[in-house]
Amino acid sequence: MTAPMEASNKIINIAVVGYGYWGPNLVRNFSELNTARVHTVVDLNPKLLELVNKRYPATKTTTDFQEMLRDPEIDAVAIATPVNTHFSLAMAALKAGKHVWLEKPMAETSLQARSLVEEAEKRGLILHVDHTFIYTGAVQKIKSLIDSGELGKVLYFDSIRVNLGLFQRDVNVISDLGVHDFSILDYLFNEHPIAVSASGINHFPGTPENLAYITLFYESGLIAHANVSWLAPVKVRQILIGGSDKMITYDDLEPSEKLKIYDKGVSFTDDPKKIHEMRVGYRTGDMWAPKLDGSEALRVEGEHFVDCILTGKTPITDGRLGMRVVEVIEAATSSMRGRGETVHLPRQGSSK
Amino acid sequence: MTAPMEASNKIINIAVVGYGYWGPNLVRNFSELNTARVHTVVDLNPKLLELVNKRYPATKTTTDFQEMLRDPEIDAVAIATPVNTHFSLAMAALKAGKHVWLEKPMAETSLQARSLVEEAEKRGLILHVDHTFIYTGAVQKIKSLIDSGELGKVLYFDSIRVNLGLFQRDVNVISDLGVHDFSILDYLFNEHPIAVSASGINHFPGTPENLAYITLFYESGLIAHANVSWLAPVKVRQILIGGSDKMITYDDLEPSEKLKIYDKGVSFTDDPKKIHEMRVGYRTGDMWAPKLDGSEALRVEGEHFVDCILTGKTPITDGRLGMRVVEVIEAATSSMRGRGETVHLPRQGSSK
Amino acid sequence: MTAPMEASNKIINIAVVGYGYWGPNLVRNFSELNTARVHTVVDLNPKLLELVNKRYPATKTTTDFQEMLRDPEIDAVAIATPVNTHFSLAMAALKAGKHVWLEKPMAETSLQARSLVEEAEKRGLILHVDHTFIYTGAVQKIKSLIDSGELGKVLYFDSIRVNLGLFQRDVNVISDLGVHDFSILDYLFNEHPIAVSASGINHFPGTPENLAYITLFYESGLIAHANVSWLAPVKVRQILIGGSDKMITYDDLEPSEKLKIYDKGVSFTDDPKKIHEMRVGYRTGDMWAPKLDGSEALRVEGEHFVDCILTGKTPITDGRLGMRVVEVIEAATSSMRGRGETVHLPRQGSSK
Amino acid sequence: MTAPMEASNKIINIAVVGYGYWGPNLVRNFSELNTARVHTVVDLNPKLLELVNKRYPATKTTTDFQEMLRDPEIDAVAIATPVNTHFSLAMAALKAGKHVWLEKPMAETSLQARSLVEEAEKRGLILHVDHTFIYTGAVQKIKSLIDSGELGKVLYFDSIRVNLGLFQRDVNVISDLGVHDFSILDYLFNEHPIAVSASGINHFPGTPENLAYITLFYESGLIAHANVSWLAPVKVRQILIGGSDKMITYDDLEPSEKLKIYDKGVSFTDDPKKIHEMRVGYRTGDMWAPKLDGSEALRVEGEHFVDCILTGKTPITDGRLGMRVVEVIEAATSSMRGRGETVHLPRQGSSK
Repeated sequence: MTAPMEASNKIINIAVVGYGYWGPNLVRNFSELNTARVHTVVDLNPKLLELVNKRYPATKTTTDFQEMLRDPEIDAVAIATPVNTHFSLAMAALKAGKHVWLEKPMAETSLQARSLVEEAEKRGLILHVDHTFIYTGAVQKIKSLIDSGELGKVLYFDSIRVNLGLFQRDVNVISDLGVHDFSILDYLFNEHPIAVSASGINHFPGTPENLAYITLFYESGLIAHANVSWLAPVKVRQILIGGSDKMITYDDLEPSEKLKIYDKGVSFTDDPKKIHEMRVGYRTGDMWAPKLDGSEALRVEGEHFVDCILTGKTPITDGRLGMRVVEVIEAATSSMRGRGETVHLPRQGSSK
Repeated sequence: MTAPMEASNKIINIAVVGYGYWGPNLVRNFSELNTARVHTVVDLNPKLLELVNKRYPATKTTTDFQEMLRDPEIDAVAIATPVNTHFSLAMAALKAGKHVWLEKPMAETSLQARSLVEEAEKRGLILHVDHTFIYTGAVQKIKSLIDSGELGKVLYFDSIRVNLGLFQRDVNVISDLGVHDFSILDYLFNEHPIAVSASGINHFPGTPENLAYITLFYESGLIAHANVSWLAPVKVRQILIGGSDKMITYDDLEPSEKLKIYDKGVSFTDDPKKIHEMRVGYRTGDMWAPKLDGSEALRVEGEHFVDCILTGKTPITDGRLGMRVVEVIEAATSSMRGRGETVHLPRQGSSK
Repeated sequence: MTAPMEASNKIINIAVVGYGYWGPNLVRNFSELNTARVHTVVDLNPKLLELVNKRYPATKTTTDFQEMLRDPEIDAVAIATPVNTHFSLAMAALKAGKHVWLEKPMAETSLQARSLVEEAEKRGLILHVDHTFIYTGAVQKIKSLIDSGELGKVLYFDSIRVNLGLFQRDVNVISDLGVHDFSILDYLFNEHPIAVSASGINHFPGTPENLAYITLFYESGLIAHANVSWLAPVKVRQILIGGSDKMITYDDLEPSEKLKIYDKGVSFTDDPKKIHEMRVGYRTGDMWAPKLDGSEALRVEGEHFVDCILTGKTPITDGRLGMRVVEVIEAATSSMRGRGETVHLPRQGSSK
Repeated sequence: MTAPMEASNKIINIAVVGYGYWGPNLVRNFSELNTARVHTVVDLNPKLLELVNKRYPATKTTTDFQEMLRDPEIDAVAIATPVNTHFSLAMAALKAGKHVWLEKPMAETSLQARSLVEEAEKRGLILHVDHTFIYTGAVQKIKSLIDSGELGKVLYFDSIRVNLGLFQRDVNVISDLGVHDFSILDYLFNEHPIAVSASGINHFPGTPENLAYITLFYESGLIAHANVSWLAPVKVRQILIGGSDKMITYDDLEPSEKLKIYDKGVSFTDDPKKIHEMRVGYRTGDMWAPKLDGSEALRVEGEHFVDCILTGKTPITDGRLGMRVVEVIEAATSSMRGRGETVHLPRQGSSK
């Protein structure tokens, strides 16, 4: 819990660091909020800053990160740079007393992630990790279906997240694509995985793994699997969630019916007379595709971030969630390099 | 290589053992061949035999397997009984000098499978395992695309084979569904996996595992994965095969365009000047869905079996292929129970 | 209303005439009913009758239609011969006192259809026309959604029914494919079209029209359209039904979710202040795919036919429905040959 | 043929009139060209002009269309206003010596369209109508497949273009959606339709027709059909084109495989011995989805417009094409109001 900003009609000044692939989306998004403005954009490349000058003449630009940090007008720093710079930049921003919005994954190691979480908590600053998917209408709807008990006991989560490219040079495909599933899992279930087994391969020597299969085991009996690849001929973004009462398919590429809820399940008989027969019964019924909130997730997330700064609330995707996601990436990568050997994760009931 | 039958216009007399789920398909299929006839049907259930009498008045029926074996008119025995009876029934048939058609998986253990293979080879009898998928137009087309080099180097094989039910009581989902992928892999590639890592779960105590994820590792760098489940809200039968030059999607539920070949791939530069840039390039081009041979696979397979008996040829899906498939099931099940621990498979270069 | 048969446990003896494309389905289907049996099969081709003898040894066969009519054991005659023989065969059967099941379309002209209807009514015999689609779970569900008012006022019906082949020699594509839509429309709505405009073409001289577009106009404001073709590269069987409250898509090729009901519609404002603005509002909501009755339609229809014979009830797809369908085919064909000129249909409120 | 501009490196100054729905796309698009710039934006609504000032500070804005016309720096005027203003604005622009880019449909009546064409030709000015679809990779590919003879003789064109809304107040659905098909047809085939039959309805009194079915007849035997609606629960943008050798499906909503070419067709035998049998044979083969040029159509079209101004070339979608499209809209609307009565179109061989 952080200390709220005093005035309710304060405009939050944000500095965006990194104007490469994702940075421009952050600048556009923060610019459109009523409660925030983009005060400064930082990038090492002056050509990218020229683009900012043209499109946003009222926004300052600089190549000097430290100079930006010294500006007392700036309330928050949004960091959209390569992963290997996240820790040092975010730590410096926190130490300069700035709230931080950090791209995912939040750090290269869980140790780094933990340091950032502790620094932010010590200083009463907001540390927000940009797991955008959590703020989509689809994930919000799934969360409410699970929490209301409509699915029954959730038995499995199965995700396919594949396409051709883009090969990353500095992070493997687990860190690039699996990160989405790990954050969604953390948000949906009040449970941290207890073990992970992963396999994967780098087909091209000297590059990170471009294809991986990750299984997460949970104490409740839930099992989760992610199939992630940069080397598929077709793009797939599909999640199955099976409950004892109902089951969900979530196809993120479907324009209008992303979520389908199947009134399907299995039931068991304990009738001893049937002990030698099939004891599993099937139930199939209607399918239902709810209308989803179509708001842009990044917009919802941006408003939430600013609201947390203004009111002192803890972000939904706070540093602790981000840290647990990094722990899973770390464990999965370790298991993958051991060809599937089980890697155990620490219990974290208290920290959720 | 077995000794060919003398006369070319001989009609092969087949006994079908087991008239439950699959047996009726075998009887119908063998009945329609010009070179074979169903001489006898064996089942322990007299009611099922009544059905045979009505539909096929010229076919003998009996509940006595041994009696059938003693009939010198019978050339071959097709066994479609539960897996746990395969070994004893097939061994008895071989010892009685009959050629054998055996449902998949051919045995519960690889030791049993090996005994059957050795018995058949010793006696010069045909031992055919019914891996029907191999005889489909789709798998035949994939095989020819791989063998002609059109895909380039094959990098991965990724299969999803899920639906709701039928829960089996005596075998797990790897044995029930993964078996298809293992046989297709064995047929497509001249390579036996060297290690396997699998995870899975039985959501309902006292039943076999109903959901599993299996990764197979090959010495050439090929990686294969199968996602199999009896607990999915939708039926999926989809395989992706990625080559360095082209990639395939194979959707077995698609009525008319099961196979799509994508002129897509990645290329790498070794240009030292680009060492700090992205070194992976993408190539995308046309997609092509070849017309497939639409013959019923079971019909093609039946003719092949009879042809092997008549000519002494080795079946495509002979006992050795069936044995290698059982080895993979065994290793995958073992790994699954160890939560993904790597299980190594014996080298079998010589036996392929 | 016809006179009911006396005994409730009577078995109805049916003669099936025509054992070509559809006849075998009728024989199989009537054979499986508990309340009926296939007494005789008539066909001019002795080779086809040999097939019957093999498959159904208890069924009589003959090439002599008149001989069959003289057999007093036969209660009902099912006619599955080319359309140009329907009238004479059905009339002879009715005059011989037999109930009649007639394939669709029931006759070549509406005059012929009317004669058959009047003959059956005069004699108190069942005249059933085989519009199988009416007995599917999908059409039954649509009917109940319309009748319950759930769709609101139905505004349009739009059907696409195209594929490659089979080119017919004796009937055009309206008679072959449009017939399904016309019977579904007659069943769903308590209204006969008042006018029709159709266009179409025979691309190959000397053959019937192979592609046609038909619009039906109704007094209530409903408009219906059917796009039918034997010359499409893909098979499509899709119907849209738009209501003021909800809308339906019905895809008959979809294996599991044939029917989707969209909570979508438009609303209008009469607010005079908005007279210069858009006065149409949109409403979009959930989509819902109800589980359908999966019974085989032909089985349901067969039971209904026999039940009508036994109880004297009027079949759902009686001769009057069949006659109205022929009237629409006739009018549509006439309009098509006049390149879309409006053809008016007689009012038939009283006869429904 | 118009007189080319002198200097090849001249920058064309464009005024965009109308900054409502489509105008902003034109401004963005022309701004990105190297050979043109947006000199002025005209709109009656000062609030919309403020938006322009913010986004494009170097662009002039005015509410006075006449004032803009008097500016000698302006070479060309792009008109994106309601259809009922097209004629007067475009005529004024031509009379002021400006080249004109006009949104579709180019005018309310074919008489108006003809006046504009004649005025432009008299003055040697470019009159370009914005039929954007013509410039897509998909339509360009279809054109080349037809022109190369790969489809064989084209037999039919069948388009479905439906969705929910937007209801227009001033134009009917033929003018709003059918216009796309009519322009594509004009571009693909060297033939003007000779007759049209259309049906349609306005479900809501006082509004234009919201659903229509249009059939176009061509002298060559080609038949074309468009199904257009603002009242469908799902969005469909699908065209089938059937040739005697190959057939095409074009699904504009498909992200990656918009065009599929089927090696399917029919063949006829004239063998007199087969006169009583089926004389139509079917051929089915591979399907092929070519990679399409992914350039933004509006960008390609903008460059083409500027190129025509600079070189004096005639635009692909010139006023004559636009006029023929208006003729078809006019004839179809007239037929629709006569419930399908055939409306004949003038021969226009000379003008193509």
